[in-house]
Amino acid sequence: MERTMQPREVKVISVFQDLRAANDQIAAANRAAFEAAAVRVVNVLGSPGAGKTSLIEATARSGRWAGRIGVIEGDLATANDAQRIAALDVPVVQINTGGGCHLNAKMVASALPEMDLGALDLLLIENVGNLVCPASFDLGESLRVVVSSTAEGADKPAKYPVIFRDADLVVLTKTDLLAHTDFDPQAFARHVADIQADLPILHLSCRSGTGVDAWLDWLSQRT
Amino acid sequence: MERTMQPREVKVISVFQDLRAANDQIAAANRAAFEAAAVRVVNVLGSPGAGKTSLIEATARSGRWAGRIGVIEGDLATANDAQRIAALDVPVVQINTGGGCHLNAKMVASALPEMDLGALDLLLIENVGNLVCPASFDLGESLRVVVSSTAEGADKPAKYPVIFRDADLVVLTKTDLLAHTDFDPQAFARHVADIQADLPILHLSCRSGTGVDAWLDWLSQRT
Repeated sequence: MERTMQPREVKVISVFQDLRAANDQIAAANRAAFEAAAVRVVNVLGSPGAGKTSLIEATARSGRWAGRIGVIEGDLATANDAQRIAALDVPVVQINTGGGCHLNAKMVASALPEMDLGALDLLLIENVGNLVCPASFDLGESLRVVVSSTAEGADKPAKYPVIFRDADLVVLTKTDLLAHTDFDPQAFARHVADIQADLPILHLSCRSGTGVDAWLDWLSQRT
Repeated sequence: MERTMQPREVKVISVFQDLRAANDQIAAANRAAFEAAAVRVVNVLGSPGAGKTSLIEATARSGRWAGRIGVIEGDLATANDAQRIAALDVPVVQINTGGGCHLNAKMVASALPEMDLGALDLLLIENVGNLVCPASFDLGESLRVVVSSTAEGADKPAKYPVIFRDADLVVLTKTDLLAHTDFDPQAFARHVADIQADLPILHLSCRSGTGVDAWLDWLSQRT
């Protein structure tokens, strides 16, 4: 007697897919909480040392959202960045990921009880310094800003395209170093346009103050 | 009648651990191949735009290992870096990770058939620009060099400690920008020493050439 072969179902464990799906669920809950409180949330992404914290400091210092701005800081270790923000009398929560290479929606959710969302118009979330992994994890934000410095070179959008794909704005920082580097702004703009034709690029230097008002205006129009 | 409760074994799926173990096995095979061919392999790590490719270019240009140096380039996308190296008449293989945030031992193993290891004394592997994830993946290298630029700020070792923990050398690049940034070399040295007391730091500028000879000497002593 011949045995009828019944093909078995192949069980595929898609760890990354599952992780992403679980993350998206929590991100949706975060987003609902942010919308209920009418707070604009910006996910600030970029390499280590791109100038993310300096940009957030400049935003907090401007006084445009005085008393109505909050910050979440993501780092592998230390509370250095949160201390820089707290010094400006802005509510801030530091998330330490241990060795983790990005923030995820759950980490942000765990920080929210420490934040009085009802008091805020604007919440800036500084992600872990990393031009790769944070791109794949929705935190529930409404806007994504990629910070890239002139010192990193003009080819970064071509070499790290994923994170630029979902960005709403690119802030090109440390433009005060332009005269001292080989950075080619035209090449940078071309690489950005190759990924997203209409993605705006804002030139900025926290050191000289150039571009900070334009950044604040961009943000004001969206809060 | 009371049922005797037998505690069940809890099955833990440690995806990351399994990934690491599988990687370590391939890394060991890579290492054996490198040792059999008497080739020194350096894993070059650092943030996007830290100056890894420029350091490798300077090494290739020096002529110290003329005809006996090879390069493997790791990037999410593009063959830009490999083209820079190929222009110097050095054998080079470009690995594109797709969206992957680090090189692993398998990727390096897949590049080895393209390399005549017997002809080499020195193989430089430029990892994906990322100060977090590459730290966890052994490629079979004998030396790890972390490249960190003055433009990134002095606090990076404190904020990204894992990658500095297993390093054999820190190359502080873009020292020509020192006069134009707030970078504090003493603070940087202190942060590095907090992680590894005797980890050497080499100051270097590919632009001015300062420190390049010291880097080549360090490397020569190890090949």
